[in-house]
Amino acid sequence: MGIITLLTDFGHDNWFVGTMKGVIKTISPTADVVDVCHEVPRHDITAAAFMLRNACPHFPDNTVHCVVVDPGVGGERAAIAVETDRCRFVAPDNGVISYALDGQEVRRAVRIEDERYMRTPVSRTFHGRDVFAPAAAHLDAGVNITKLGPEMERFVELPRSTPSKLSEAEVVGHILHVDRFGNLITDLHETFANELLAKARGQYFRLQVRDHEVHRLVGAYAEGRPGELVALIGSSGYLEIVINRGSARDTVDIGEGGEFILKVL
Amino acid sequence: MGIITLLTDFGHDNWFVGTMKGVIKTISPTADVVDVCHEVPRHDITAAAFMLRNACPHFPDNTVHCVVVDPGVGGERAAIAVETDRCRFVAPDNGVISYALDGQEVRRAVRIEDERYMRTPVSRTFHGRDVFAPAAAHLDAGVNITKLGPEMERFVELPRSTPSKLSEAEVVGHILHVDRFGNLITDLHETFANELLAKARGQYFRLQVRDHEVHRLVGAYAEGRPGELVALIGSSGYLEIVINRGSARDTVDIGEGGEFILKVL
Amino acid sequence: MGIITLLTDFGHDNWFVGTMKGVIKTISPTADVVDVCHEVPRHDITAAAFMLRNACPHFPDNTVHCVVVDPGVGGERAAIAVETDRCRFVAPDNGVISYALDGQEVRRAVRIEDERYMRTPVSRTFHGRDVFAPAAAHLDAGVNITKLGPEMERFVELPRSTPSKLSEAEVVGHILHVDRFGNLITDLHETFANELLAKARGQYFRLQVRDHEVHRLVGAYAEGRPGELVALIGSSGYLEIVINRGSARDTVDIGEGGEFILKVL
Repeated sequence: MGIITLLTDFGHDNWFVGTMKGVIKTISPTADVVDVCHEVPRHDITAAAFMLRNACPHFPDNTVHCVVVDPGVGGERAAIAVETDRCRFVAPDNGVISYALDGQEVRRAVRIEDERYMRTPVSRTFHGRDVFAPAAAHLDAGVNITKLGPEMERFVELPRSTPSKLSEAEVVGHILHVDRFGNLITDLHETFANELLAKARGQYFRLQVRDHEVHRLVGAYAEGRPGELVALIGSSGYLEIVINRGSARDTVDIGEGGEFILKVL
Repeated sequence: MGIITLLTDFGHDNWFVGTMKGVIKTISPTADVVDVCHEVPRHDITAAAFMLRNACPHFPDNTVHCVVVDPGVGGERAAIAVETDRCRFVAPDNGVISYALDGQEVRRAVRIEDERYMRTPVSRTFHGRDVFAPAAAHLDAGVNITKLGPEMERFVELPRSTPSKLSEAEVVGHILHVDRFGNLITDLHETFANELLAKARGQYFRLQVRDHEVHRLVGAYAEGRPGELVALIGSSGYLEIVINRGSARDTVDIGEGGEFILKVL
Repeated sequence: MGIITLLTDFGHDNWFVGTMKGVIKTISPTADVVDVCHEVPRHDITAAAFMLRNACPHFPDNTVHCVVVDPGVGGERAAIAVETDRCRFVAPDNGVISYALDGQEVRRAVRIEDERYMRTPVSRTFHGRDVFAPAAAHLDAGVNITKLGPEMERFVELPRSTPSKLSEAEVVGHILHVDRFGNLITDLHETFANELLAKARGQYFRLQVRDHEVHRLVGAYAEGRPGELVALIGSSGYLEIVINRGSARDTVDIGEGGEFILKVL
């Protein structure tokens, strides 16, 4: 019994995800379907790519990750299936799997084109049901990925948000993601952040985000004082700007893509 | 391992659905429970019936569909179990399964009355837990449907929204459902819409909805120009009024039941 | 194949719950994971404890209930695993399991401390992924609870809301929980409520809640007249104040912890 994960922007107020599961179970009755998230903001490929990158490493080998965040459905974009040394992906070719592929070795990638592995007639508005769910289910059921369509070499890469160095001691970073608690996840990866902070004699730094300053790096949310903006290395491996039992987003009034400056003193 | 689907208006902010699953697993440990939707608008039997009609055909044969949208819980309405040539239903007898039954042949229908197949004492406010989940689980576990209670012949039918013809070239249609993207799903089925449009020499038509006009039938969302209201045959098989990457509902300011006129030119 | 339930305040708009499931499936591939609720109000331990108490009795014996409502994550609070005569719990030691334990006999309780049964390195912000999901999965996979860490005797108890008697015929009660329909679930358990009402000659009573009065005890929502506030014994076993097809919360304008007076006449 293999695992198929689902990650979509379909939400929970309709029958779309349930229908995909019906299609999957019809093709591969013993598939174990696990929801990653269905509340990706509509058409937000970058948010979905970030979520998939965070969730993917925690699933068993050979899991099939089926992603349907697909503003181009019914248009020119390809539907792809990718097999790596770790797992498999089924998704539109719009970059949504590109962050998750970091550190994985791609073994085979195909355009999904063979209608024998689709639900026909293929609707031009619901490829989740007619293309992606069937492809994921057939892979889970043991169909070789090369049956789904012709092999391909290159697929779409999303741009990556990266901090830029102003000097040895100063970088401009960006807000990658705001979680539901209002924690601001930045694009400063822990290796980068640690290296930067190691250059300072102690732990002294100033992080300027809009008209707020952060001066303390803590280990856990609970170490922040009430109302205090603090920095912390979060569970995704990135520096976060947070407030213990409060919302950094509401305090700072910033969203995804927003900038900050970190200066080691 | 059979499938039991759940469709309710219980939402996700409470323990109701989880509790039904506990009851099901206690009776039929290997049942594979799949959520269709739990965000049906409160007590909206028609919306639930439409969702069930859309999801149901995509599940394997013999699936048990358990529906709990039940404004009359604890009152006079019967609880019913229905077996067709394709699948089984467990629901209040308020019409919520009637759209899904279209095209299926009813083999047997019973009133659920035998307390041996209920959780007792039966609460008068939570039949999802005490009546419907146990009935679905017992059916999945192999109990013959006739054990659940006395056979019955007729059950409640929901009225159906249908377009009305003004002339050979003009119909009044209605909004059946508004999805989360603001797409307006109408009651013009594709067979009807295609027949109507075939009567025109080309594809020329005018669809008047409130103070907006629609002139183009497209194949996919992505073919709409920014801000343009277009018509399209959606994945449910009905004509939809949509805006590519926008919300037709917000633009037109219309809800379920709203009317429009389609005239072939 | 055992059952692991999940109850968190993580919500559905992120990858947290999906990630926990990936961790569980990696350790115990045949675990059957069931969601109880993920929309517990943020950090609301009391609400989660009430939900767990309501759902828990309906799951099969030996179910592992994994609860992550954990404002103290990364701080001093212990992570615990508890085995009773009925089932098992994995949770932070903040009282969140205390209501569910009522009527169960605790057989063994341990502090989860052995890193062999964690995902390492343990993040200090996501123990759901690194501590609780692995512990639940290892228990499901057959690991003896005493392997997880040292045994302990006492764990945190939440205070319990209880009605106070003003006289033989008059009590002050409190709103325990407001459900999504606006039904007000009180802390008057049915045994208590029935005893009280039995003392009256008939069913005459007056329940005063803010500037509203309730005079009728009904058996089901549907027995309430339009707009009428009525009392009813709900599916959780407590007296509820409700309006048939309406919201008692909106009418009365009261929230959790709010008081009312019930007087038998």
